[in-house]
Amino acid sequence: MFQINENYQKLPGSYLFSTIAKKVAAYSSANPDKSIIRLGIGDVTQPIAPAIIEAMHKAVDEMGHAETFHGYAPDLGYEFLRKAIVENDYKARGCEIEADEIFVSDGAKSDSGNIQEIFSENNRIAVCDPVYPVYVDSNVMAGRTGTYDPKTEMWSNVIYMPCTAENNFVPEFPKETPDMIYLCLPNNPTGTTITKSQLQEWVDYANKVGAVIIYDGAYEAYISESDVAHSIYECKGAQTCAIELKSFSKNAGFTGVRLGYTVVPKALKCNGVSLHDMWARRHGTKFNGAPYIVQRAGEAVYSEAGKAQLKDQVAYYMKNAATIKAGLQKAGYTVFGGVNAPYIWLKTPDQMTSWEFFDYLLENANVVGTPGSGFGPSGEGYFRLTAFGSYENTVAALERIKNL
Amino acid sequence: MFQINENYQKLPGSYLFSTIAKKVAAYSSANPDKSIIRLGIGDVTQPIAPAIIEAMHKAVDEMGHAETFHGYAPDLGYEFLRKAIVENDYKARGCEIEADEIFVSDGAKSDSGNIQEIFSENNRIAVCDPVYPVYVDSNVMAGRTGTYDPKTEMWSNVIYMPCTAENNFVPEFPKETPDMIYLCLPNNPTGTTITKSQLQEWVDYANKVGAVIIYDGAYEAYISESDVAHSIYECKGAQTCAIELKSFSKNAGFTGVRLGYTVVPKALKCNGVSLHDMWARRHGTKFNGAPYIVQRAGEAVYSEAGKAQLKDQVAYYMKNAATIKAGLQKAGYTVFGGVNAPYIWLKTPDQMTSWEFFDYLLENANVVGTPGSGFGPSGEGYFRLTAFGSYENTVAALERIKNL
Repeated sequence: MFQINENYQKLPGSYLFSTIAKKVAAYSSANPDKSIIRLGIGDVTQPIAPAIIEAMHKAVDEMGHAETFHGYAPDLGYEFLRKAIVENDYKARGCEIEADEIFVSDGAKSDSGNIQEIFSENNRIAVCDPVYPVYVDSNVMAGRTGTYDPKTEMWSNVIYMPCTAENNFVPEFPKETPDMIYLCLPNNPTGTTITKSQLQEWVDYANKVGAVIIYDGAYEAYISESDVAHSIYECKGAQTCAIELKSFSKNAGFTGVRLGYTVVPKALKCNGVSLHDMWARRHGTKFNGAPYIVQRAGEAVYSEAGKAQLKDQVAYYMKNAATIKAGLQKAGYTVFGGVNAPYIWLKTPDQMTSWEFFDYLLENANVVGTPGSGFGPSGEGYFRLTAFGSYENTVAALERIKNL
Repeated sequence: MFQINENYQKLPGSYLFSTIAKKVAAYSSANPDKSIIRLGIGDVTQPIAPAIIEAMHKAVDEMGHAETFHGYAPDLGYEFLRKAIVENDYKARGCEIEADEIFVSDGAKSDSGNIQEIFSENNRIAVCDPVYPVYVDSNVMAGRTGTYDPKTEMWSNVIYMPCTAENNFVPEFPKETPDMIYLCLPNNPTGTTITKSQLQEWVDYANKVGAVIIYDGAYEAYISESDVAHSIYECKGAQTCAIELKSFSKNAGFTGVRLGYTVVPKALKCNGVSLHDMWARRHGTKFNGAPYIVQRAGEAVYSEAGKAQLKDQVAYYMKNAATIKAGLQKAGYTVFGGVNAPYIWLKTPDQMTSWEFFDYLLENANVVGTPGSGFGPSGEGYFRLTAFGSYENTVAALERIKNL
């Protein structure tokens, strides 16, 4: 008889955001009169910018006529989009990345989950703790993480790099040597980041020990400080050790439009084997491209009008971030992040666990946040609020929290 | 140092359609004056139907306003689309499939490639030979296929079920018991299919030996004969042994729009473990939904106007199929398929190999087809032409072939 992938059975509970959704739904149906403000899941609320809407309408029209209809997209994405990406996200920053090193996808979540496939099952991964749960979960499914200890909430074969207030949220080089290092910078969930020179140290370390860095730059658009790198390829030597994942979800509000890309430099090799070729093969075999309409939307992100509109959108969310941060500080909370990222990371008051604080906030302020422990054991005792709500809701949520 | 997934190194050459694209590009650049007609890759040419274009414009507008903006989609797809699928593709045919057994995705290629992930590495797969290459290739990448013999072009741990003119393209139960059986019906590339009662025998066989059937119904819309099943769930007992993959690429021309779905019945279990829960977990962890705009496009496929327009579109392509079939027969070729599928499968003349005939046709008629051997060893000596071109091109291609 057929057998299942037993690794799935090792996954504890369900995916973090599904659990939150269920808890909120239960509270909501028991208390239909309460108006709940959601600052939990990192989903945007502002509409798609006009320049992008215009580009999508145009592309939809093209799809309706035989002469301009587009069928299967080129394997790695349309040239027009890959060129726009390279010009704006790389060449403009002095990074030597070529258009054929860009792989367009349906989003960074897919890429984050799938990228581990091209690596050996025996590789050992290192992750910042806390961090976006997909890195660990996708490696659990692939059988790379050993056994789970429900007490410590840690996997025996994962190297955790704690990022807490104690080390100023800067991961330290692990004692054991990892093969694959996941870095999400600016970090989800803490909203903190590291300087360019600190990132350079990670690149040097990876090249020295022979590790590959999976660099998730989904929140890059929110960087406001000048000594923070917008791409890992701003660091010398990153092309021989790093893969970069990028999303259009947060800089352009594409959570429901779906677009992302991954950079695999041609110089990145393992014993002479090109990882670029491997990822191209994976794309060619298991993926058929992002929709034409969506790739045109991505192109409009880099148009002059698009850039101006999105700058305003990012500023809108960062105003929320500043509002949350200042409001929480005034209410006596200890708060981190919110300067180079749309996330605010707070210490739970009165020694509450993260989930205790989640319930407390949901029941008493009708505000939904995300328990820090959902992102890793070192997230326990912390809590994430996002700046992706509307300004009005953000202000209202802060009022409620202050009045607790 | 980090290591790669060595299974990738076992894959012989590159993906079939990439090879064809390169050959055509080379011929084209050496002979810029020649006008090439492409009946190779299964890509559609007719524009998206008006009812669907209208739905997409409406959805694009919604994305441009805060009140109607849509962020992250529900994990398994929007309810409006899953309901439309269930009503039209299942309930209308007497199949008891519920909306929460439908998983909306970005296309059947992704699902075909990813579905093997939830199964044990030790499972043994059986495939029709010839067949769509993704089933075998994705299992090679996962390490399930053993070693490759370049002489026979077969994998040591894959069970091949030859489908040739000798057995009327009906796969026979294999001598060794498989764990996972891939069935693509109507078949790509042969364009042939089996009757509903023959499919029932496969369902009974799978339930008896404890195998799971991965049923790819991408070409279902082209079925014209009444004794052919439109879904495997028309067969008794399929809910305990079969997963069904469906595409919008061929019935609605979504090759560049990207939409598909997979049915995993709740009754499908392995030692008590629900495969539905596993696939839900896979979706929740590694995928963030198909675009809202595209899911609205999918909904329009099932509208009254959409259904009428798509019926015409399918008829258009099937007229091409009939044209190719009749034309080739007149020219003395032995031809199969084209009745319940948009593919024509021909025996190469004069003992030519499939690739020899590919080159012969490209160079002498400037017509691109697909070598049968690219779909498996039993495809050697056969050749695939698709009905997805324009009618004018199809007629012109047949003229050229007749004049060879």
